[in-house]
Amino acid sequence: MVNETKGLLVVISGPSGAGKGTICKKLMEKNNFWLSVSATTRSPRAGEENAKSYYFLTRDEFEEKIKCNDFLEYAEVYGNLYGTPRSSVMEMIDNGKNVILEIDIQGALKVKEAFPEGVFIFILPPSMEELKNRIIGRGSETPESLMTRFKSAYKEINYVSKYNYAVVNDEVALAVEKIQGILVAEKCRVDRIKEDILDNKEGIVHEQFYD
Amino acid sequence: MVNETKGLLVVISGPSGAGKGTICKKLMEKNNFWLSVSATTRSPRAGEENAKSYYFLTRDEFEEKIKCNDFLEYAEVYGNLYGTPRSSVMEMIDNGKNVILEIDIQGALKVKEAFPEGVFIFILPPSMEELKNRIIGRGSETPESLMTRFKSAYKEINYVSKYNYAVVNDEVALAVEKIQGILVAEKCRVDRIKEDILDNKEGIVHEQFYD
Repeated sequence: MVNETKGLLVVISGPSGAGKGTICKKLMEKNNFWLSVSATTRSPRAGEENAKSYYFLTRDEFEEKIKCNDFLEYAEVYGNLYGTPRSSVMEMIDNGKNVILEIDIQGALKVKEAFPEGVFIFILPPSMEELKNRIIGRGSETPESLMTRFKSAYKEINYVSKYNYAVVNDEVALAVEKIQGILVAEKCRVDRIKEDILDNKEGIVHEQFYD
Repeated sequence: MVNETKGLLVVISGPSGAGKGTICKKLMEKNNFWLSVSATTRSPRAGEENAKSYYFLTRDEFEEKIKCNDFLEYAEVYGNLYGTPRSSVMEMIDNGKNVILEIDIQGALKVKEAFPEGVFIFILPPSMEELKNRIIGRGSETPESLMTRFKSAYKEINYVSKYNYAVVNDEVALAVEKIQGILVAEKCRVDRIKEDILDNKEGIVHEQFYD
């Protein structure tokens, strides 16, 4: 009676140090999740494969795709362009695959404008104290840059109100479980499946009683 | 960082024959679910206990509660009043318990007006064919009353658009699993927990950096 075969675009976002990467890695180990592959104009590094690590494009190719509106979002970082290709994401969703997009907050907000029917999940650190510990744990930070990163993460948490869900990453397995629950719920949301229910109902009853 | 301790009001509704009762019974076997006890003016039957089967009230007591706005919904059926007491539901929710309310569509829509922050779940039969089989399976139906019930169920499915979620009851265990996923998701919904996140964040950071 209900068509639940279309996939979801699941956007995993949040401040750096919240643990987005680890969560996405664990999600990928579950069935039916596909990581969105970004496009970039930067050169491939040793071991990087085209269409797996990135879609490697020339600047001309990339700019052509911008003109054709084929990016859900894109940004220039240190002179290189990075973007999320719309067509490859849409193809996977149409084939019933849930596409995971791990992305920073600015990128996520752009994706939300381009594709509001995505599921936008904000990953929160268990506490600001723990966030500080995680940023310190990564090393290679001077006290000044640590403070900058921390203050930036602090400000970024205000963007949680733009998201659909917030998941506290105190324990990775638990956070992943919550995200799986969110996807189950999203596939039952009336806003998503109303048309299917009402269309099918009509068909079945018509057949049985009015023909 | 996030207060997830408040319970949810989970309204399980849908056409007769969809299997609401079986699903609620299974949900009750899980932890942390409490069934809402209705109030009624009808006399207790053998074996029925006050505050367990129903809250048994006199008509005066019931009407006094209506005046005090202590019903999330109420209705008169064959000369007896039935209602969902607001105060006992709210008390359980405040104590972190998820309250299940199994109720027909008219009742659910009244509850939604009184308490829109509830989680409104519409239980669907796997097909209209299967719904017909289930109604026949209950016996004690003449062909005419079967057709009346069936046509009424058919019309009722249109109300799905007033609900938050629709769950197809093709397999009870699977439907229950979906409802559990919905509750996990609802507790992560930014609309519900935004205040807590932003309040707590402020507190923690203030303590660490600005005092």
